[in-house]
Amino acid sequence: MATQSKKQEKHVYFFGGGKADGNESMKNLLGGKGANLAEMAGHPDLKLPVPPGFTITTEVCTYYYQHKKTYPKTLNSQIKDSVKQIEKLMGKKFGNVKDPLLLSVRSGARRSMPGMMDTVLNIGLNDETVKGLIKVTGDERFAYDAYRRLVMMYADVVIEKAGGLEPAKGIGIRRIMDEKLSELKKEKGVELDTEIEAKDLKKLVKEFKALTKKYLKQEFPENPWDQLMGGVGAVFASWNGKRAIEYRKIERIPEEWGTAVNVQAMVFGNMGDSSCTGVAFTRNPGNGDNHFYGEYLVNAQGEDVVAGIRTPAPINNASKNDHSKKLITLEKLMPAQYKELDEFQKRLESHYKDMQDIEFTIEKGKLYMLQCRVGKRNGVAAVKMATDMYKEKLITADEAIMRVGPNQLVELLLPMFDHMEELKNKPIAKGLPAGPGAAVGRLVFESSDAVEWASRGEKVILVREETSPEDVDGMHKAQAIITSKGGMTSHAALVARGWGKCCIVGCSEIEIREHEKLLITKEGKKFHEGDWVSLNGTSGLMYEGVLELIATDLNKNKSYRSLMKLVDKTKVLGVRTNADNPKDALQAAYFGAEGIGLFRTEHMFYGEGSEKPLFLLRKMIMSDTLEERKSALDELFKFVKKDIKATLEVMDGKPVTIRLLDPPLHEFVPHDKEKLMALSKELGVSMSILNRRILALHENNPMLGHRGVRLGVSYPEITEMQVRAILEAAGELIKDGKHAMPEIMVPVTMGKHELQHQKVIVDRVYLEVLKKLKLKKIAYLYGTMIEIPRAALKADSMAEVADFFSFGTNDLTQMSFGFSRDDIGGFLPQYLDLKLLPDDPFVTIDQSGVGELIKIGVERGRKTKPQLEVGICGEHGGDAESVKFCHRLGMNYVSCSPYRVPIARLAAAQAAIEDKTATF
Amino acid sequence: MATQSKKQEKHVYFFGGGKADGNESMKNLLGGKGANLAEMAGHPDLKLPVPPGFTITTEVCTYYYQHKKTYPKTLNSQIKDSVKQIEKLMGKKFGNVKDPLLLSVRSGARRSMPGMMDTVLNIGLNDETVKGLIKVTGDERFAYDAYRRLVMMYADVVIEKAGGLEPAKGIGIRRIMDEKLSELKKEKGVELDTEIEAKDLKKLVKEFKALTKKYLKQEFPENPWDQLMGGVGAVFASWNGKRAIEYRKIERIPEEWGTAVNVQAMVFGNMGDSSCTGVAFTRNPGNGDNHFYGEYLVNAQGEDVVAGIRTPAPINNASKNDHSKKLITLEKLMPAQYKELDEFQKRLESHYKDMQDIEFTIEKGKLYMLQCRVGKRNGVAAVKMATDMYKEKLITADEAIMRVGPNQLVELLLPMFDHMEELKNKPIAKGLPAGPGAAVGRLVFESSDAVEWASRGEKVILVREETSPEDVDGMHKAQAIITSKGGMTSHAALVARGWGKCCIVGCSEIEIREHEKLLITKEGKKFHEGDWVSLNGTSGLMYEGVLELIATDLNKNKSYRSLMKLVDKTKVLGVRTNADNPKDALQAAYFGAEGIGLFRTEHMFYGEGSEKPLFLLRKMIMSDTLEERKSALDELFKFVKKDIKATLEVMDGKPVTIRLLDPPLHEFVPHDKEKLMALSKELGVSMSILNRRILALHENNPMLGHRGVRLGVSYPEITEMQVRAILEAAGELIKDGKHAMPEIMVPVTMGKHELQHQKVIVDRVYLEVLKKLKLKKIAYLYGTMIEIPRAALKADSMAEVADFFSFGTNDLTQMSFGFSRDDIGGFLPQYLDLKLLPDDPFVTIDQSGVGELIKIGVERGRKTKPQLEVGICGEHGGDAESVKFCHRLGMNYVSCSPYRVPIARLAAAQAAIEDKTATF
Repeated sequence: MATQSKKQEKHVYFFGGGKADGNESMKNLLGGKGANLAEMAGHPDLKLPVPPGFTITTEVCTYYYQHKKTYPKTLNSQIKDSVKQIEKLMGKKFGNVKDPLLLSVRSGARRSMPGMMDTVLNIGLNDETVKGLIKVTGDERFAYDAYRRLVMMYADVVIEKAGGLEPAKGIGIRRIMDEKLSELKKEKGVELDTEIEAKDLKKLVKEFKALTKKYLKQEFPENPWDQLMGGVGAVFASWNGKRAIEYRKIERIPEEWGTAVNVQAMVFGNMGDSSCTGVAFTRNPGNGDNHFYGEYLVNAQGEDVVAGIRTPAPINNASKNDHSKKLITLEKLMPAQYKELDEFQKRLESHYKDMQDIEFTIEKGKLYMLQCRVGKRNGVAAVKMATDMYKEKLITADEAIMRVGPNQLVELLLPMFDHMEELKNKPIAKGLPAGPGAAVGRLVFESSDAVEWASRGEKVILVREETSPEDVDGMHKAQAIITSKGGMTSHAALVARGWGKCCIVGCSEIEIREHEKLLITKEGKKFHEGDWVSLNGTSGLMYEGVLELIATDLNKNKSYRSLMKLVDKTKVLGVRTNADNPKDALQAAYFGAEGIGLFRTEHMFYGEGSEKPLFLLRKMIMSDTLEERKSALDELFKFVKKDIKATLEVMDGKPVTIRLLDPPLHEFVPHDKEKLMALSKELGVSMSILNRRILALHENNPMLGHRGVRLGVSYPEITEMQVRAILEAAGELIKDGKHAMPEIMVPVTMGKHELQHQKVIVDRVYLEVLKKLKLKKIAYLYGTMIEIPRAALKADSMAEVADFFSFGTNDLTQMSFGFSRDDIGGFLPQYLDLKLLPDDPFVTIDQSGVGELIKIGVERGRKTKPQLEVGICGEHGGDAESVKFCHRLGMNYVSCSPYRVPIARLAAAQAAIEDKTATF
Repeated sequence: MATQSKKQEKHVYFFGGGKADGNESMKNLLGGKGANLAEMAGHPDLKLPVPPGFTITTEVCTYYYQHKKTYPKTLNSQIKDSVKQIEKLMGKKFGNVKDPLLLSVRSGARRSMPGMMDTVLNIGLNDETVKGLIKVTGDERFAYDAYRRLVMMYADVVIEKAGGLEPAKGIGIRRIMDEKLSELKKEKGVELDTEIEAKDLKKLVKEFKALTKKYLKQEFPENPWDQLMGGVGAVFASWNGKRAIEYRKIERIPEEWGTAVNVQAMVFGNMGDSSCTGVAFTRNPGNGDNHFYGEYLVNAQGEDVVAGIRTPAPINNASKNDHSKKLITLEKLMPAQYKELDEFQKRLESHYKDMQDIEFTIEKGKLYMLQCRVGKRNGVAAVKMATDMYKEKLITADEAIMRVGPNQLVELLLPMFDHMEELKNKPIAKGLPAGPGAAVGRLVFESSDAVEWASRGEKVILVREETSPEDVDGMHKAQAIITSKGGMTSHAALVARGWGKCCIVGCSEIEIREHEKLLITKEGKKFHEGDWVSLNGTSGLMYEGVLELIATDLNKNKSYRSLMKLVDKTKVLGVRTNADNPKDALQAAYFGAEGIGLFRTEHMFYGEGSEKPLFLLRKMIMSDTLEERKSALDELFKFVKKDIKATLEVMDGKPVTIRLLDPPLHEFVPHDKEKLMALSKELGVSMSILNRRILALHENNPMLGHRGVRLGVSYPEITEMQVRAILEAAGELIKDGKHAMPEIMVPVTMGKHELQHQKVIVDRVYLEVLKKLKLKKIAYLYGTMIEIPRAALKADSMAEVADFFSFGTNDLTQMSFGFSRDDIGGFLPQYLDLKLLPDDPFVTIDQSGVGELIKIGVERGRKTKPQLEVGICGEHGGDAESVKFCHRLGMNYVSCSPYRVPIARLAAAQAAIEDKTATF
């Protein structure tokens, strides 16, 4: 209502003829596309040849949904005024039968949602105006082709989809019309649309209208204004289409944003061989190389390029690939227009100071700029562009750091196949390398299958002839995507690049029978659903079976090294790692970890080499008396010390936070009868005694049970053994001239007294170790996990005893939410679907809930002890948003798994930069 | 050090001769005993005949422990000065061989710790001064008796215990000397100590000294000053004796308080038949009757009364009991002194405005007041005295309310035996009714056995010849105590009265062979350890076996009714109850509940009459499809509605908060194979399907699993069925002219969105029910439990949707502490022992931790919605401290189990009074 009451509110922003009502800063109102069109058309530095048009604002979209799909009163007249301006600039009139102005209607949200919303082209054509178009262009075939495209799009987008109709014949009007078109081509013995003659197209228009009537029970509207408003309504409607909603969910785009609608004069890349249409990037979005890069199709409309039906040609030599290297470049075909385009792209990049994704059309030799926007790029390209542009002084160091999404770094860490193993295997197919990295999975042929298989925990590779926006959900769930059609700018390539997903496109060597769920290689070998294949998205090669994945040697990437140099200069927050053994510790150090934030003492009881220590631990657990327990602990001691010493040694000079035993003892007990009998024999304890002891250890809610410091209180001798192992290991290293920096961390504490109780043991053992090793001092810190909600609240008093806090955000999240991480499967997916939670709180810190407890903990702890060392060691330490949150709280470090260390470092630097630029 | 540096600090406070340095308000410094002695001696209204003396302050005790058991420098001279003043008043000199002044040394902490610390009497006697005493008193027997008592006490208390020596011969010097005394009596053929002749006592002194030398390797000090300082040190040392520490733990007396030491001129109740000593109460501490009540022993010292060795005589007719009714009263024996004593006790009660516990001694016809303090009383007496004194205008209504400890009300609610059943059973013994109420348990004969049996969950009755401070731990753990010796002022009676525990003393009909763990009744029947007996502490009767316990009819107690009238006028906080059926609801209403704060819908699936609903619930749980589930829910609906309606009906006009289904579904599934097979047959579902479904329901941490609102989100049809049942039940009652006030409560919420999700269902069903029942309105509230830590933090947004909050402090405590209530057995007892926690947080709200979350929740909720109704419904609702906390937070009500309702009401009134008197 507020919108309505304002008088003369501006709903429509005009651009064209060297002027524009809007500009690039108005993305929220005009959408990305609209704002950039205005900028290109109107900014004094650019003034590019943009077909004139106007943008209907996103506020109208909001209004539309808040007012039962109606428009503000003045919208109609503002549209009419703007169409008049277009008519003036184009010298044509909308609906004029002699020389009709044709219009396009396109969506444009704040953030690009490629292919997710609908478009209607060639608006303004009807049985009368088409005659004028024929007269003016002298090209009947072109005119009827434009007309049949309009009828097709209109029926599909405006009448069927926006009308909310069930798909006609179960497959939709578009496919019915496509089949009719294929029939016609077969009948006429032609292969390409362009080979169909004018009279057949004219007949097709009639037939399409009849199909529309028959299946959708509506007439195609002859009135151009009805067509225009129908198109506008269809774009608004498509904002809440199934595809768009799905995409928004994945990309986290708020529903409230709405979309703008862009109405523009049509220009045609399909007016013969002096016309073309293309898509280009100011730099290579696949690897970041600083070359103008793009593809084009002669005598085609834009949708032909994106749809990937014809193989596009490279715009220049730098854009050539294996498939297109024999095709003529635009630079060669239309040198003057290419030169102009090249000049425009340079102007755009230096204006926007970022890589631009450009759409252009050449109509009968005249170049039009249809769109520009910041281009999507994969992680490798993002890192290269950011550091290159910084070297070129196009951007600052801070800007370079902000240019790379922390999760894009994952792509640089993407596993690759072992080169030698790849050499041993013969590829079964080769396509275009659209998304780098390697992937292994089982073949599925439908997006819905990908979703279903993935939900069962299967790793799948989605194979399609080509992908469409309907497939995004399955693409997202797949390890990788491979298509037989389409080029580097096809839907599959664009989407996979945005996600940093392994992807091969245009792999025309393979035949895909989607309905039979069958893939046939050039050599005739058949692959069925569920068969294992391996894909190298960097080389575009596909292999049979499972190839071993290995990590990439990140530090060989120069751009990465340059970026991380900037990152380390900028960031304030330290980044440590969670590692339990020398191998992981070294891996993390390689990734830049500045210490270990979480060394779990219990890891030594799992996996390889754990038989003996586990046996001793079980012996300790099964002890009935303090003496028995102490004797088992004495034996265990040397294993624990050796284990800790090895990691302290490789982390020489870096802090290593060692957590005392955390899990409930029950976890270490064998639970099947056979193993139990073996244990009974080994320990020389009867089964009935074993069973009695195990029963006593059983807990209803082990997460809230006898674990962590509670074990240390019940069995101080366990704490003593561990502390002695830590301090002796450190002491021995010191005697060897090393610089061991242990930090002893007590888990699951809820208050000061527990910490004091354990400290008495630590203090005593410390003196004993000094005496034994004849040392004056072993530097160490004594601190605690903050992972119990109460501990966060009592942080003030806990800091009286602790030298450091490490927030265990996994458990803190479990207890703050009352969510058992093991048991959320029953309801969390539904919670996310229903938006009862914005994110999985185990992935991203719930800032307003759990985060407040963390904030309280940090503030109170530091109030008592300003120099208190504070970090986190939950899974969240590797999540960019959570890392930034930790920075804002003034923590000293985050600790995460080794492979997340670079991501955490980048996020930390970005947080520091955001700090500087924050306005409050 | 600070204490030392102050010049001329006062360590010693003198009293006597109608003057005193201190007064009653100085309890922290002088201890309770010392302050009251000063008050009695020095206050102008009292000026009672107190033997002159002085008090060494509690600060000296603190100093003593902080300075390696040494004293402030000026203490010695201050003591000497004070002794001189006593000498002046008494006309005798300390250590004078002609007419020696004798002194007593007694402890006195801020709060009375009866018998827990040590005393030394007759200080000043040695081989020389005893001769002076003989000359002055003309009573050689008396003098040597006093001397042998001194040697005995000194050896025991000062040399052995305070010296930290191992008990001599394993039994202690006292028992060695006692045995020597017994031998002597046997040898001489006498029964009583008083029958031993002077020459034998003189010999005994010698022998005792020799025994001291032999076993303790120390000489008894002949120097009176050494004796005095030894006594003072022994009192300080006894503050940290084992018994005192145990008692402090039970009574929650801080260690830091320390004890004062009172040194007083000796007066003797054992100087022949014109001397006596006694203990009295200004009103009857057992039932509250307004009669002067007490016992005395002729020719005895105070310790003889408390020890319960001789049966004391009543001071007047009102004090007679079955055992003492034939003994001569003090009133009759010494009418003048009795009259004076009666006048003193009246003066004391009207001065202190509370019932006083008095110790007195008459030495050769002269009355001395040795002690006065507020007397302990049981719950029945407390209620009666409070309301009587209010009626007498001795105290105000607020004072009357504050006089009754909320837990004392428990005693009024104490179960009694069914009167008819008691008549059917013949008592096996009769003793003195020292602690009212009834108890059933298994016999144990040692305090340590009581502790051990109780730790195994056994209910025990501790039977002893007499109890001593060593027994307090076992007494505390026992259901009841019975002794064969001692009177109403014996140790057992005093302690049991303080705790409101069922207790029978002086049951001389039974023979107890402690070492054989055997009890033999008058009729020769033998009872062994572990045998079941039933005790009526109100009548003093003991029965064989288990008698059924029934509740008392509280409202027949006039004093209780008067008190609760005052309570209800005063309290602000509402008190509701947790009740799941009409019976409990009515019981609670009888106790004064103002509504139901927690009605658990799931209760109908447990216990009697639950077969059919449980079957339907299981059918619902085992459903594979929505349709199956809905059909089971449809059947279940009528049971749920009937169940809810019955309780809404009896609570007509009072709010009933109904919690939607809370437990994880797994809880309702039968877990043994037999029941499962029956279910499989009943439901017509195969075992394998059942097992699969049950496995799917299993959770690792059900407390943090799929429960509460999470079920309502996953199965909205369950919420719908329950809400429909609630609203239809209420609607139907409204149509019947009743006033149903349902409050729909959603459990286990963690944020606003869940509440909104469920509210959509509630709103829809509400409209449907209105339509069905043709009603315009059904008044109801929609609200939530706050039991997840995050919910407390997000209370601001949750209050946007909720009409009320009910803090579920059980779960909130579990999650805030990370303690599973089911699993704390493994460590919580140790935590309490080690003082890692001050209290069991499931009994008393952890105010500084969990309490802060509650405070945050209340504040934020009320900030959003000032009229938000707030209550708690955890077990804490019946804990007095927690109730007071809820009052301070401004909650609307607490809800507790029916039997805690009176306690909560009283605590609420006390909180309101404390509010008024709070200084900030």
